Amino acid sequence: MRALFIGRFQPFHLGHLFILKEILRENEEVIVAIGSAQLSHTVRDPFTAGERFIMIKRACEGAGIDLARVHILPIEDIHRHALWVRHLETLVPTFRRVYANEPLTVRLFVEAGYEVRKTEMMRRNEYSGSEVRRRMIEGLEWRSLVPPGVAEIIEEIDGERRILDISKSDAK
Amino acid sequence: MRALFIGRFQPFHLGHLFILKEILRENEEVIVAIGSAQLSHTVRDPFTAGERFIMIKRACEGAGIDLARVHILPIEDIHRHALWVRHLETLVPTFRRVYANEPLTVRLFVEAGYEVRKTEMMRRNEYSGSEVRRRMIEGLEWRSLVPPGVAEIIEEIDGERRILDISKSDAK
Amino acid sequence: MRALFIGRFQPFHLGHLFILKEILRENEEVIVAIGSAQLSHTVRDPFTAGERFIMIKRACEGAGIDLARVHILPIEDIHRHALWVRHLETLVPTFRRVYANEPLTVRLFVEAGYEVRKTEMMRRNEYSGSEVRRRMIEGLEWRSLVPPGVAEIIEEIDGERRILDISKSDAK
Amino acid sequence: MRALFIGRFQPFHLGHLFILKEILRENEEVIVAIGSAQLSHTVRDPFTAGERFIMIKRACEGAGIDLARVHILPIEDIHRHALWVRHLETLVPTFRRVYANEPLTVRLFVEAGYEVRKTEMMRRNEYSGSEVRRRMIEGLEWRSLVPPGVAEIIEEIDGERRILDISKSDAK
Amino acid sequence: MRALFIGRFQPFHLGHLFILKEILRENEEVIVAIGSAQLSHTVRDPFTAGERFIMIKRACEGAGIDLARVHILPIEDIHRHALWVRHLETLVPTFRRVYANEPLTVRLFVEAGYEVRKTEMMRRNEYSGSEVRRRMIEGLEWRSLVPPGVAEIIEEIDGERRILDISKSDAK
Amino acid sequence: MRALFIGRFQPFHLGHLFILKEILRENEEVIVAIGSAQLSHTVRDPFTAGERFIMIKRACEGAGIDLARVHILPIEDIHRHALWVRHLETLVPTFRRVYANEPLTVRLFVEAGYEVRKTEMMRRNEYSGSEVRRRMIEGLEWRSLVPPGVAEIIEEIDGERRILDISKSDAK
Repeated sequence: MRALFIGRFQPFHLGHLFILKEILRENEEVIVAIGSAQLSHTVRDPFTAGERFIMIKRACEGAGIDLARVHILPIEDIHRHALWVRHLETLVPTFRRVYANEPLTVRLFVEAGYEVRKTEMMRRNEYSGSEVRRRMIEGLEWRSLVPPGVAEIIEEIDGERRILDISKSDAK
Repeated sequence: MRALFIGRFQPFHLGHLFILKEILRENEEVIVAIGSAQLSHTVRDPFTAGERFIMIKRACEGAGIDLARVHILPIEDIHRHALWVRHLETLVPTFRRVYANEPLTVRLFVEAGYEVRKTEMMRRNEYSGSEVRRRMIEGLEWRSLVPPGVAEIIEEIDGERRILDISKSDAK
Repeated sequence: MRALFIGRFQPFHLGHLFILKEILRENEEVIVAIGSAQLSHTVRDPFTAGERFIMIKRACEGAGIDLARVHILPIEDIHRHALWVRHLETLVPTFRRVYANEPLTVRLFVEAGYEVRKTEMMRRNEYSGSEVRRRMIEGLEWRSLVPPGVAEIIEEIDGERRILDISKSDAK
Repeated sequence: MRALFIGRFQPFHLGHLFILKEILRENEEVIVAIGSAQLSHTVRDPFTAGERFIMIKRACEGAGIDLARVHILPIEDIHRHALWVRHLETLVPTFRRVYANEPLTVRLFVEAGYEVRKTEMMRRNEYSGSEVRRRMIEGLEWRSLVPPGVAEIIEEIDGERRILDISKSDAK
Repeated sequence: MRALFIGRFQPFHLGHLFILKEILRENEEVIVAIGSAQLSHTVRDPFTAGERFIMIKRACEGAGIDLARVHILPIEDIHRHALWVRHLETLVPTFRRVYANEPLTVRLFVEAGYEVRKTEMMRRNEYSGSEVRRRMIEGLEWRSLVPPGVAEIIEEIDGERRILDISKSDAK
Repeated sequence: MRALFIGRFQPFHLGHLFILKEILRENEEVIVAIGSAQLSHTVRDPFTAGERFIMIKRACEGAGIDLARVHILPIEDIHRHALWVRHLETLVPTFRRVYANEPLTVRLFVEAGYEVRKTEMMRRNEYSGSEVRRRMIEGLEWRSLVPPGVAEIIEEIDGERRILDISKSDAK
């Protein structure tokens, strides 16, 4: 069975990693779909799809996950909800089960006939992307919330400085 | 004289039907333009263009309106206000008079040289799409606000459940 | 049973009308989907979606077809074949059977699980849109190939002159 | 040295003119890039790119600025921040220095390797586009905030009436 | 009277300059609209809008043309012919007369009610963009066909090498 | 050193696999960028991005390639050549060297400052995607041209039938 794990991963944190391991316990393969791939350089979505892709790959390697079982793919938004599931289906390998959390995403997959499992049950609230970003902006400790490989990449791209700068903005 | 009646019709309610009959009293034909046709699956715009189209057609049939006099057409947004009237003009038969309510829509048609009649004078506030949607979300009675054919279609597509589910979301 | 009849209708000719009547013999309702709705002002696609819509409606009226059974709707291209059927599905009422002719269109509906009937068996080759357009450009008689209501509309919009002028062009 | 001066210029006011003169003191040529060129007919962005273009040109003429040294160009938004600087680069002549104020814009040019000078130091706060628009909506005196040529164009296009009308709207 | 001169200017050659001077003899101001502004790096459209903009400006300066009377503006294609004139109207100052040559462009402005003058009468065939590009690809002399300022810019951006390289390609 | 290998992979054949192994001999990691990801269901581009992704992954597994060193990513076209390299850069991890063959692609990366190595030197002509597709359409043997894992996936999705059907079409 191949499953889909959909999220924005801004950034990929330890909660995501925990869920990913759980999914791999229940399924042979997982597609990690990087949602809103076109977004970057905003407080809510600071990192590009390419940056998020390499964060997830490094986190998997660091956790000893077999990369043959994980498929990481960017998915741009399409701004038409009724088309979004089909859009995603054309960009990734086939799958049968979905792990998601956002109510709209859940609803769209349910209408399309997929089995959906909510990830919020899976300790999601202990870690969150918005908490990581808030700490970056306020100059607080955030490294303990993400896998070491993710922290390294954020440092390489000067991610803290980027999010701090754009936090003074209202958006383009 | 052919007139244009523009709205989002989320969903088509008894206030819309009342206005439509009024327009047909003053004009030979009417184009019912379904605005924001690309939107669906949000609390403000729960229904697809195809769903709204068939709601309007059933409501007309139920009210004994001559379908040769009514042209129902979806209009996607174009996200450039200065182009929007021209965009609409290329998708519908020619028309001379416009029935609209939203101030921006009115302004755009006025700048394009059309005669515009405001529909708010026409009992609009007794019924409203947002009220119908609010009642659906809160589990209150809403069927009395829409034509019977519209209520049937909403039931067929499990519309109450859709709007309830996505009301827990913040939007994609 | 509701069926879908998909075409570009540049313009709607007697062959189309013949097929439409056949479809209404086999089905209760038909959706006439005007494909490539965004195109106009080219030799292959001279007429806007709005012009084609009113041609089809007038042709139905002229043929005494019950308009409650016919739903005419413009469908813009989406330039991603794998998404096109889903795109169409969100814009029109639900349907179960498809009448089409173009092999790609047929293939896309087959992959989506629809029953598809080829219209070419239905005398299509006696009449064709390209033949009507060729005659317009060469100044030959073309009115006998289209319903009278269609010929009237083409005259109203000075369609012969338009196609002649743009035939000297290579496209924008 | 050729510099870039980026803004929305809704409308071009005396603060903009002051900055433009300063830039021409420090640089041989300046590109005045009209941002969000696709927007118009909203309270925040009432004027089209064409209207803003002619306002800026008239303001330069009125101020005796040598037009061979000023290049005025519209730039549509691209809705992908990581692509925006490159998008702009393909539409304007080459430049080396940027004058901007909005933190996101500043950040994007810094990541692309440009020297950026903040315009807020240059008396920006005495004049502002939002103040001009607020006064128009409230019927207050606004002409003293813009160059005479700009006021003339706003009158020609009945700009006060436009912004007043759409201020009653919530947006399309 | 303000006129519009529309072309792709790939590149701006002596024929264009001749026409521009003629237009300025008949009109007070001219808008030089750079069509297909989004295109570059193809054999038919090798130069970006920014490169074409500065070519035209330098050619005007070299010819002693008063820059207050000339407005140079890029216009991206919109891929919907029926919207194209309106699209252009929102991006440029108002105009009353059009100088164009391509039959489709002429037809679109005629349908929109403009007075159109064909430029082909104005010696167009002595010079042509396709001839300049052909000579570049075949290593023949082309500088005598363009204003000196244009030749300088093509050299600065290594334009000959670009067009030669992409002439081996079929297009992306 | 991380390298980029760009192609359409319609489908991924033994020539591609040979090049991929060569690249991994010269570089630590490689990004396999699936170009024109939005295309499918045409004779030239029959397979979706998701189908091509899983073909490449299966081919790597079958060839014993370490998946930690290979990053497979879909890249949609952007239809503006001057933006395309930047578009790709935002979707993939950083890279320094490019392996490509198409002259336009080579030129765009060269203008962006990358080191580019032509893949045509690397036995490309023995195998080609167009040859595989031609054989499918003509009912000839094609399996020997692709890795076994690719042939299996094409069978699963009934790829031969798809390409045969659409070969009768002219395109949508």
